[in-house]
Amino acid sequence: MSVLEGKVLIAQGGGPTAVINQSLAGVVLESRKFPQVTRVYGAVHGVDGIVNENFLDLTQETTHNLERVAQTTSSALLSTRTKPDEDFCARMFDVMKAHDIRYFFYIGGNDSADTVRIINEQAETENYEFRSIHIPKTIDNDLVLNDHTPGYPSAARFVAQAFMGVNLDNRSIPGIYIGVVMGRHAGFLTAASVLGQTHPEDGPHLVYVPERPFDTKLFLDDVENTLSRHGRCVIAASEGIADENEVPIAQKLVESVERDAHGNVQLSGSGVLGDMLANLIKGHLKTKRVRADTLGYLQRSFAGVVSDVDQNEAREIGERAAHLAIWHNLDGSVTINRTGSYSVDYRLVSLADIAAKTRVMPNNFISKKGNGVTDAFRAYLRPLLGSRFPSTYRLRAPLVKKLRTKS
Amino acid sequence: MSVLEGKVLIAQGGGPTAVINQSLAGVVLESRKFPQVTRVYGAVHGVDGIVNENFLDLTQETTHNLERVAQTTSSALLSTRTKPDEDFCARMFDVMKAHDIRYFFYIGGNDSADTVRIINEQAETENYEFRSIHIPKTIDNDLVLNDHTPGYPSAARFVAQAFMGVNLDNRSIPGIYIGVVMGRHAGFLTAASVLGQTHPEDGPHLVYVPERPFDTKLFLDDVENTLSRHGRCVIAASEGIADENEVPIAQKLVESVERDAHGNVQLSGSGVLGDMLANLIKGHLKTKRVRADTLGYLQRSFAGVVSDVDQNEAREIGERAAHLAIWHNLDGSVTINRTGSYSVDYRLVSLADIAAKTRVMPNNFISKKGNGVTDAFRAYLRPLLGSRFPSTYRLRAPLVKKLRTKS
Repeated sequence: MSVLEGKVLIAQGGGPTAVINQSLAGVVLESRKFPQVTRVYGAVHGVDGIVNENFLDLTQETTHNLERVAQTTSSALLSTRTKPDEDFCARMFDVMKAHDIRYFFYIGGNDSADTVRIINEQAETENYEFRSIHIPKTIDNDLVLNDHTPGYPSAARFVAQAFMGVNLDNRSIPGIYIGVVMGRHAGFLTAASVLGQTHPEDGPHLVYVPERPFDTKLFLDDVENTLSRHGRCVIAASEGIADENEVPIAQKLVESVERDAHGNVQLSGSGVLGDMLANLIKGHLKTKRVRADTLGYLQRSFAGVVSDVDQNEAREIGERAAHLAIWHNLDGSVTINRTGSYSVDYRLVSLADIAAKTRVMPNNFISKKGNGVTDAFRAYLRPLLGSRFPSTYRLRAPLVKKLRTKS
Repeated sequence: MSVLEGKVLIAQGGGPTAVINQSLAGVVLESRKFPQVTRVYGAVHGVDGIVNENFLDLTQETTHNLERVAQTTSSALLSTRTKPDEDFCARMFDVMKAHDIRYFFYIGGNDSADTVRIINEQAETENYEFRSIHIPKTIDNDLVLNDHTPGYPSAARFVAQAFMGVNLDNRSIPGIYIGVVMGRHAGFLTAASVLGQTHPEDGPHLVYVPERPFDTKLFLDDVENTLSRHGRCVIAASEGIADENEVPIAQKLVESVERDAHGNVQLSGSGVLGDMLANLIKGHLKTKRVRADTLGYLQRSFAGVVSDVDQNEAREIGERAAHLAIWHNLDGSVTINRTGSYSVDYRLVSLADIAAKTRVMPNNFISKKGNGVTDAFRAYLRPLLGSRFPSTYRLRAPLVKKLRTKS
């Protein structure tokens, strides 16, 4: 096998995560070790940076700064929502050929995998020697063939710590609390809310994921039952919950539906779903104190809450990608596979098997009634949250005998 | 001076904070050292627990568990929004006499200080030997005579880290981002958003606090100017922003105004202000990508983001309160005073000087145009955020010369 000499190009696409720069640092630092790599470029704003030839020469970036960037949340190369069509890919490919780019790494979700697949096909058609690898990232955890995806564990940790806190808050001043969590089609991130539970009656008491149809009547029954049992109710609801006809509950409310370039309806960046659910409860149940928060962009960008397991894996999957392309001359998508409790390895799969496909929560992770999650899910998620995950403690002192009133 | 023998009673009132249990632990552990203290009781759900005689015997709580509870966010004794009137205070006082309570500590905001003041007056009228101390806490930082209040530094740290992240997110996929921050009358918490800035053009680019009238036209001008300068715009807006007639912007929008027992309009627990501001921008500026998050209850309850300076001070102010009442036989409210850069001491002031008064941001903390904060504010807040405050790093590699397109 002859050695393929040329440049490396790296880009980041889609929504940022807390560890996406770990994968970037992994690719850059590992690529720079190979003598056949003449330069390591980074495209600014993902695929847009490729057609516009906006490249940073990462060969000239210090190792020390790369290590600090790796610790910084969000896409250091900046990102894009552009979904390239065949023509756009042809233009990208033209630029890459002009710069003698022979290795392409795209860190992104399943749309990004599809982009890599198209470019790869183009290279084969034109008989241009070219290796391209998709490196997964998504807080939604919705890539097929992956045990989980880099970015999800840190976002899950944020959601778990958020609900750990709001449960205590709700316990101290009882009422109904609704927290709306990101996740268009997959409920993994919403389900993470239960990992903040310590004591038996800790919330969230109800969890609604997009994998089950959302029924308004059953929802109100659930809330009423929880209230009579605990005197309070903490609810985690996915932004993507939909009715039995798969119409998103949020979409029913938004006056002017805004769609992105991928044809998706805007679900994040608005408090409308939470407020609607709160008004629904206020209108039907005799309870005054109903509060709704939409956890919003903090879930994927918050600086300072990160899983070290996630950091390590995101770094290593970037390094692995460099090895697979440059050492082993392979194309594909690198996946994370769970091998033990807890250990993982990384496998290369074909881009066509990942691209534009969506994984949802398996049935055994969702409770029978569809309003909670199972211990199987807890066992799945816990090792991903990493070390120094907080816990909560409560007073256990005995009650004092009453002197003035009957107990 | 004769030694006053009897029981200690502690309660927590109002909204929880990340360090309110530090003050609880401080009072309990320090009180238990005094031989004249026969028991240390905790009232469950604040003043409601007093009239209902719901007391925990904290003399029987382990020191080890108290230390772990101190690390847990939110009120471990549970809280209440009840604002006692004279009659309610008389009933509380009746219960306290029945239990031979001689020392009362109430951890809360300015409403709680007023409660302590009324009970104290009642004791004097009845010639009942009784010491009562108010221990400050509020994430709003709006107590007079305090350099700052326990709970604020940790909430400020959360807000700063949140904006640190959303600024990076907004930089990677440009658009307009609005983050709505708690603070009914005082803008201290909203202003904290700027402490997450590292680089010159980092957001939030615009900060709106309740201390200045909010003008819709000037707001849209500010956003447009920021967009033309940075190509994006991150906005921090206080939930309490109001027009020139002091009508809250949020209140104008809420269909059915909900008020709490203190006569306050509900501003938190709804995304309506953020969504309204986003729609305002969408309606007037030619920009599509506008997102709004309401940071919500996470600001005061999030488990795992805390300032160690805040923890230390909250603990010590509780200990001080115990000393002032039990050693020195004094009543009042304990305040935090800044003595150096950075050091503090604690002083006792009269309850009447604190009770039911509200501090707002001084003029020199707010920029002349009223849409930002000053370096004086940055210098004020930075030491409070504590150690290991994160920073952000960006790539500094040179741009590559274009081959296909003109730069």
